[in-house]
Amino acid sequence: MTYRKRDYPLGDIRRHLETGPIVLVSAAYKGETAIMTMGWHMVMEFEPALIGCYMWTENHSRTLAQTSKECVINIPTVDLIDTVVKIGNSSSAEIDKFAAFGLTPVKAAKVGAPLIKECYANFECRLYDAKLARKYSLFVWEVVKAHVAISPKNPRTIHYRGHGEFTVAGQTISRRRLFKPEML
Amino acid sequence: MTYRKRDYPLGDIRRHLETGPIVLVSAAYKGETAIMTMGWHMVMEFEPALIGCYMWTENHSRTLAQTSKECVINIPTVDLIDTVVKIGNSSSAEIDKFAAFGLTPVKAAKVGAPLIKECYANFECRLYDAKLARKYSLFVWEVVKAHVAISPKNPRTIHYRGHGEFTVAGQTISRRRLFKPEML
Repeated sequence: MTYRKRDYPLGDIRRHLETGPIVLVSAAYKGETAIMTMGWHMVMEFEPALIGCYMWTENHSRTLAQTSKECVINIPTVDLIDTVVKIGNSSSAEIDKFAAFGLTPVKAAKVGAPLIKECYANFECRLYDAKLARKYSLFVWEVVKAHVAISPKNPRTIHYRGHGEFTVAGQTISRRRLFKPEML
Repeated sequence: MTYRKRDYPLGDIRRHLETGPIVLVSAAYKGETAIMTMGWHMVMEFEPALIGCYMWTENHSRTLAQTSKECVINIPTVDLIDTVVKIGNSSSAEIDKFAAFGLTPVKAAKVGAPLIKECYANFECRLYDAKLARKYSLFVWEVVKAHVAISPKNPRTIHYRGHGEFTVAGQTISRRRLFKPEML
């Protein structure tokens, strides 16, 4: 599937990450690229737009992202589910995952890491804080540029449940009328 | 809705949190209780079972949880959606949310904070690390006891998208056959 995308306001990326989708992290350093599958992440701040990410020492993408201090967080939809699993079950130290899995690298605007064209959204990130890397494998990234598909409005993201199972994002329900204006 | 629950292995709670549901955090201190709605959280470790949680200084629940060093992370399903929003749009400093919203507090096994009976799952937590509280409002909690409903196996959890909208967990898809055994 190919999505047409537009620039997206950084203060609003929680719309696509707070729901907890599995994401693909792409990174590059000195001509080498890597992609990892990541399920442990959280929104940490609106402005700057901070995302906390668990990136394990065994992930080759972590090495490239930590060294270059840049990465891209890409959000796949259910059409990419097999690819997501294959990326999580192979190592970028051994294969070029873009070539192996038919993904298209696209030049980012502000970072050296490539966007994954086939994903619904791409968030270009710069390293904000690596102090928690040693204790928790936790990296805090600042999103500096966001690209999100124009449609559909409600993407069928996939959410990892462990044991090889995913939940697909279903129905969207609005409860806007129950919110205080300042909470929206 | 009332769920029948059983003890659940701590190393497996990612099954219910990695998907990114909105959760309710309950806390208690010196006879006072509080409940907050929380969307910014992540799994951080299997063993010990660590959960990173963004708890804002304005949340009264944060004050009680930080002081007592205990809380319960409760996972609601879509039948509680209005209650979840109302909890997020009111303050425990002003009202007793259990009474105001018809929720039933249940005594926990290992912590002083009450479980919310109407939720699908309840994770009793002890404070593991508060060093990141000042800089990031981030608290690392260790789950010390887990209670999860016996059925359904695939709960209709709700996932906050901002703007007053939620996505409901839909279809479950297994891709177990594509995983290496050691990745399951």
